[in-house]
Amino acid sequence: MINEKMLSLGKKSSVIREIFEYGKKRKNEIGAENVFDFSLGNPSVPAPEAVNETLVDLIKNTPSTLLHGYTSAPGDIGVRTAIANYINETYGTNELPENIFMTCGAAASLTISLNAVLNKGEEVVVFAPFFPEYRVFIEKAGGILHSVKSREEDFQPDLEKFEQAITEKTKAVIINSPNNPTGAVLSEETLVALSDILREKSEHYSHPIYLISDEPYRELVYDKETKVPYVTKYYENSIVCYSFSKSLSLPGERIGYVLVSSTADDARELYFAICGAARSLGYVCAPSIFQYLIPDALGKTGDIAVYKKNRDILYTALTSYGYRVSKPDGAFYLFVKALESDAKAFCEKAKKYELLLVPSDDFDYEGYVRISYCVSTEQIERSLESFEKLYKDYEGV
Amino acid sequence: MINEKMLSLGKKSSVIREIFEYGKKRKNEIGAENVFDFSLGNPSVPAPEAVNETLVDLIKNTPSTLLHGYTSAPGDIGVRTAIANYINETYGTNELPENIFMTCGAAASLTISLNAVLNKGEEVVVFAPFFPEYRVFIEKAGGILHSVKSREEDFQPDLEKFEQAITEKTKAVIINSPNNPTGAVLSEETLVALSDILREKSEHYSHPIYLISDEPYRELVYDKETKVPYVTKYYENSIVCYSFSKSLSLPGERIGYVLVSSTADDARELYFAICGAARSLGYVCAPSIFQYLIPDALGKTGDIAVYKKNRDILYTALTSYGYRVSKPDGAFYLFVKALESDAKAFCEKAKKYELLLVPSDDFDYEGYVRISYCVSTEQIERSLESFEKLYKDYEGV
Repeated sequence: MINEKMLSLGKKSSVIREIFEYGKKRKNEIGAENVFDFSLGNPSVPAPEAVNETLVDLIKNTPSTLLHGYTSAPGDIGVRTAIANYINETYGTNELPENIFMTCGAAASLTISLNAVLNKGEEVVVFAPFFPEYRVFIEKAGGILHSVKSREEDFQPDLEKFEQAITEKTKAVIINSPNNPTGAVLSEETLVALSDILREKSEHYSHPIYLISDEPYRELVYDKETKVPYVTKYYENSIVCYSFSKSLSLPGERIGYVLVSSTADDARELYFAICGAARSLGYVCAPSIFQYLIPDALGKTGDIAVYKKNRDILYTALTSYGYRVSKPDGAFYLFVKALESDAKAFCEKAKKYELLLVPSDDFDYEGYVRISYCVSTEQIERSLESFEKLYKDYEGV
Repeated sequence: MINEKMLSLGKKSSVIREIFEYGKKRKNEIGAENVFDFSLGNPSVPAPEAVNETLVDLIKNTPSTLLHGYTSAPGDIGVRTAIANYINETYGTNELPENIFMTCGAAASLTISLNAVLNKGEEVVVFAPFFPEYRVFIEKAGGILHSVKSREEDFQPDLEKFEQAITEKTKAVIINSPNNPTGAVLSEETLVALSDILREKSEHYSHPIYLISDEPYRELVYDKETKVPYVTKYYENSIVCYSFSKSLSLPGERIGYVLVSSTADDARELYFAICGAARSLGYVCAPSIFQYLIPDALGKTGDIAVYKKNRDILYTALTSYGYRVSKPDGAFYLFVKALESDAKAFCEKAKKYELLLVPSDDFDYEGYVRISYCVSTEQIERSLESFEKLYKDYEGV
């Protein structure tokens, strides 16, 4: 008699969670140092020191009723101004503080944006592999998820398939770059082409198709030549869903924002719909102390050199053993071809070597595993032997 | 083409907000000390000192990746255990940590609970006057709000009307005690009678009707003899939506919880539906540092003696001038009969005396105003002359 859909969502723990729980049990059995848990995308480097310093400073020097009091629903205007200035200076855009809505992190940014734009039965295109919660968020907002497979060679969107996937019902497209689970960064070339298609289809169907850019990993790129193009420069009707969870290593604190591009058709109306959606979902304001932290933290990150080091060690070793790995430009995931077609079976076999990997099936993609390398470098190094043994096991050596 | 309902919700700023904005403008014109703004329910006393001390201690002595990392979606189990223990010790209940779900405050607690229990078209009974966002939350969850007028003499629910209002479609009832906007506390006698009706109707219609208790003001009561009965002791299928916003003066930080009564039918299933609803609305976890703060803060409040003093000064003065006021037992609102039938017109006239009051219409009740006395005692004292003049204005003196 309660809501069956909510019940089944709550009952079904995610595959990632199950693996993590198995890992906890196994660590108790054989010692934490002997289990190589690569399941969770939880930042392993501490927040930048400046974060805790600023928090203490805010606590000590801000009147309590201001620091801990309600901000306006969209967030403190000083904070939003600092964010807009930072974006404009960094990317050469003309974004506006009044188009920024502070949120409780990326998941909230996405649910708010989807509820703002979708009407019942409208479609949202996503590129597989994709973060499994997209389906949950889209369906709860009344929409229908339409999955388009990325190109296997580089995990860029397959634009031909994308174009075919757009129908009169298509209301939005979600991109996620750097990507979870592949680590791929959407190239400028692809973004330009994708935007052209969207523009043409919007005109053809006489309504805007929104480009929703889910960007929690924006700052997590490891090579100087890797640029993550800023979507509002390429496509007018874009919505940026940002989170500070990964860049500042603050995933539990829930702080992020939605930015409506200043060039969006009826940007004001779209922004008001964002305000209305947030209100109706119960989001009163983003945690106030974490809002006030942001102006000091913009452009800072945790020590992401650790992630780069982990990536390089793991990528080099795995390819040397014979694994097929697409070298990730960003995020903290390695997407590795499973050594048999059934990724779940492969993950089961990996457990024999105490390797906890996530099968790609939950990301709506078959035959791969995700390795989260946001762990200690020591764990990476100690796990290499197991990866090698696993490979040899399949070779029958 | 975007969601029209969300757009209209976002566009329409609340009446309370409008009055607040008018107040800001007016303060610029004639000086803040000359404007008596009673519009917002924003705690005016600082958080208990222990709150900031604990926060600094957590920041200095907890590893960053733990303190700021994800907790499980329902919240840290140590925190939930502390809350369950506190509830059981304080109210003599047998509530369970595994039935507690940490949330981003009361609004989140309500939207999560409503989305968990409601199916499209089911009804939720609320007692007028009520917090206007109830309508927004219920409708977004697919439900229909059914308003039942409280008794004017004491603002307790009118149980006869309540009984008539329950239909086969009724899925839940929301109570809010101490009440916004009346300050009334639901008496034990009323809660017993209300529970009996709910039990009988649940049986009659062969499905549970949930009692959702919205309790952000639980600790804000001012007389020793005032007890706020704990709902799970009176009714099995109850859900407590709690927030620390008002008791700890932390409204901007967004921390609260949902508790499913251990005696609820299928409490586990109901709890899982809560987990599913939270997930689908984008709530990943409640802000982690504020979760870890709670065990130390349970049972503490800001200096609520200030609110009591404000209430007493205001109540005594207003009744002496001739206003009809029901003395509030809790929260920080005074609900005063307007001096003409049109509360909005009355509020307009009050502005002549720089008194900013909220008309009761938005609370689905006519002919009253809400006075938020969570302001400085000085403001209360300085405003009395204006209240007296306003009264005399109506007397034609």
